[in-house]
Amino acid sequence: MQAVDTLIEAHWIIPVEPAEQILEQHALVILDGKILDILPIHTARSRYTAQHTQQLSEHLIIPGLINAHTHAAMNLMKGLADDLPLMTWLQQHIWPAESALVNPDFVRDGSELAMAEMIRGGTTCFNDMYFFPNITAQAAAQAGMRAVIGLIVLDFPTAWAKHADDYLQKGTDLAAVWQNHPLIDSSWAPHAPYTVSDEPLAHIRDLSAADGRTIHMHIHETADEVTQAVANSGKRPLARLDDLGLLSPRLNAVHMTQLTTDEITRLAKAGVSVTHCPQSNLKLASGFCPINDLMKQGINVALGTDGAASNNDLDLLNEMQTAALLAKGLSQDATAINLFQALSMATLNGAKALGIAAKTGSLRIGKAADISAINLNCLETQPVYQPLSQLLYASNRSQVTDVWVNGQQLLKERHLTTLDEAQCLQQAKHWQKRIAQHEYSTT
Amino acid sequence: MQAVDTLIEAHWIIPVEPAEQILEQHALVILDGKILDILPIHTARSRYTAQHTQQLSEHLIIPGLINAHTHAAMNLMKGLADDLPLMTWLQQHIWPAESALVNPDFVRDGSELAMAEMIRGGTTCFNDMYFFPNITAQAAAQAGMRAVIGLIVLDFPTAWAKHADDYLQKGTDLAAVWQNHPLIDSSWAPHAPYTVSDEPLAHIRDLSAADGRTIHMHIHETADEVTQAVANSGKRPLARLDDLGLLSPRLNAVHMTQLTTDEITRLAKAGVSVTHCPQSNLKLASGFCPINDLMKQGINVALGTDGAASNNDLDLLNEMQTAALLAKGLSQDATAINLFQALSMATLNGAKALGIAAKTGSLRIGKAADISAINLNCLETQPVYQPLSQLLYASNRSQVTDVWVNGQQLLKERHLTTLDEAQCLQQAKHWQKRIAQHEYSTT
Repeated sequence: MQAVDTLIEAHWIIPVEPAEQILEQHALVILDGKILDILPIHTARSRYTAQHTQQLSEHLIIPGLINAHTHAAMNLMKGLADDLPLMTWLQQHIWPAESALVNPDFVRDGSELAMAEMIRGGTTCFNDMYFFPNITAQAAAQAGMRAVIGLIVLDFPTAWAKHADDYLQKGTDLAAVWQNHPLIDSSWAPHAPYTVSDEPLAHIRDLSAADGRTIHMHIHETADEVTQAVANSGKRPLARLDDLGLLSPRLNAVHMTQLTTDEITRLAKAGVSVTHCPQSNLKLASGFCPINDLMKQGINVALGTDGAASNNDLDLLNEMQTAALLAKGLSQDATAINLFQALSMATLNGAKALGIAAKTGSLRIGKAADISAINLNCLETQPVYQPLSQLLYASNRSQVTDVWVNGQQLLKERHLTTLDEAQCLQQAKHWQKRIAQHEYSTT
Repeated sequence: MQAVDTLIEAHWIIPVEPAEQILEQHALVILDGKILDILPIHTARSRYTAQHTQQLSEHLIIPGLINAHTHAAMNLMKGLADDLPLMTWLQQHIWPAESALVNPDFVRDGSELAMAEMIRGGTTCFNDMYFFPNITAQAAAQAGMRAVIGLIVLDFPTAWAKHADDYLQKGTDLAAVWQNHPLIDSSWAPHAPYTVSDEPLAHIRDLSAADGRTIHMHIHETADEVTQAVANSGKRPLARLDDLGLLSPRLNAVHMTQLTTDEITRLAKAGVSVTHCPQSNLKLASGFCPINDLMKQGINVALGTDGAASNNDLDLLNEMQTAALLAKGLSQDATAINLFQALSMATLNGAKALGIAAKTGSLRIGKAADISAINLNCLETQPVYQPLSQLLYASNRSQVTDVWVNGQQLLKERHLTTLDEAQCLQQAKHWQKRIAQHEYSTT
């Protein structure tokens, strides 16, 4: 008998790797934060003695969900302004509020609220892009959540940095601090083609080539963005990034609602990952990312919620449903994005886009124990013919009961273990007053 | 001091009528199943003594949601077959299972499971179309839920009736039994243009004109349906129904994904209601109902989940979100279907489509007390700048805490009062075995 930390006995386990596998009555064995074994429950009991055994007899176990694009701290602004197009929303509501109010406290409180929401929704890892990324990194490490922290770069000054070189220097310093942390990775995060000029982009290309970090960037989010770039420079933004040498397997291109057939071919050839944010794109009427076409070309498609200010939640389970339904509708093909493809987008594909697939994204022996459990024994998800169908099309995140990251249990029977729910609520209400006051005094 | 049955004191009340009103710190007063008054809490306390007072200090109160198109009993088949187009799904999975298994027990157990799900999701009324409608009517009356029971008509025999005249006779008898019941209404429910021939449709037109019942029908669900009708008869189905004199304010046309500009004008002129089922249409890749165009023409647009077999849930709150997001995306207009329009679709517009707006669909004095309460004091829906934004874009149905129909409380702090949750689960599992056995023995 081998001593291990945790044994999770589940009705169903979908490991994502190997693809399309559903294990029944299997156990997942955790030692030192990693998956040591996956095997039938009765064999596990005869082979391992665990410090903690969790019986999830009505549950489905999946790899923790990976939110491949968000701005966690913006959680404090969810529902501040709805039913507006991207630029009106940004220029008249979000940017003014941000320039007046964003500071390290805002980022810490907003990130904590966001992580509490994400953990309760089965998300174990998020790919962030926001100001004061040092604060978000600290908050994630403290909460025990996995995060890829965007080293944000813009041409113009914000509360976080003064100019492109300042952003780059602060990013370099920040990355050094978190080097080799078990939970925190970082990526270069030039905001968008229309907010970052060629020189810092070329610098980021070289830094990424040298340090292997991924590049996390909004690209072709709206038709306007493309039209204006063409009017200003004669080039579509993606062509400009290609000319700058930024298209590579390290690029995580977010949104991508405007794509020609040639551009799709080019993305496939360059091995670029695309992160799809269906609800944000719908809500801001930004356009449609043609994920069915992208996946047919072999492009890795991940899934993100975007920030809660434009979604208005960080609910990756619901995002997965929207992505699958929308792809079927748009491609006029009910077989497009099947159950397993949808789950892969929200797990393994996210890990690939973030450059961390060697350690997370699927329940494979040797990977980190990043795990979510969903109770299917609810009226809403019975009867069960196919557990993944119930997860994708009938459940909601309130059925997520238990979540582990790197072997640490962050959610236990719906209770957060590392974040204080009451305190998060109190912080949200505190910021509501300040943000509402600002919004109503200026609009 | 006037004696009343119930006083509900809420943080926010959105009555839907008058439009775009948000009341804060108001109370809703119930007497004899009806809304007697809506007034500020402190005034209510000085004017009424209630047998029951419910303080919902963190909650939003809305009219109970109205599911304007479903097949409740099909809840037992949710997730039986996914990722398939309409006709394959119907002909190879649903119809064989139905013809082998549907009987009064199936309909009772399926309807109970569906109602339990709907009540827990804030839905107080559903518009049904299925076999053995007598059983669904009984189950709804017993559960205290409001329902409009479709008097289904088909050309071909099923377990419920032998031929069109038999369906019509059974429908007439059923309608007589439930005449004047406070919760149960009925409508004529010819299944679809491709399953009901001219003679019974003409008969239904005359019956509806005489008895005032609405007509509930699938119309233009897919492009194939239209193409085949044109190939067979030279006419689009809607033109055929128009020639038969079926277009009127009593017609509730469900799906309507295939519409020309002329057809939209014709629908508006005839006063037809359209019930939009976005998730079912997406999942089966049936097409898009252009609700933004319909509403601009003044057409009443209601919202339905369709049956759980093609959705796969009866979650009208989520359907409302999908409807709003999809309309923005498709119309390339982020201002399309604002918060209040989305809520109206799921409440008052449903009541209009079902011909019961005089008694439900909004929180107006004199209407039935059909009410849902949602707790917004959750991490997922804080901070609150606009309660309806939180409801539509950030909450999910697990935040529905209390539901009343006709003044009777059917959900109390998430507990069903008239349906037995454990028994519903047991029934679901019982049918799982039988249905799975049938599915896997034939496919």
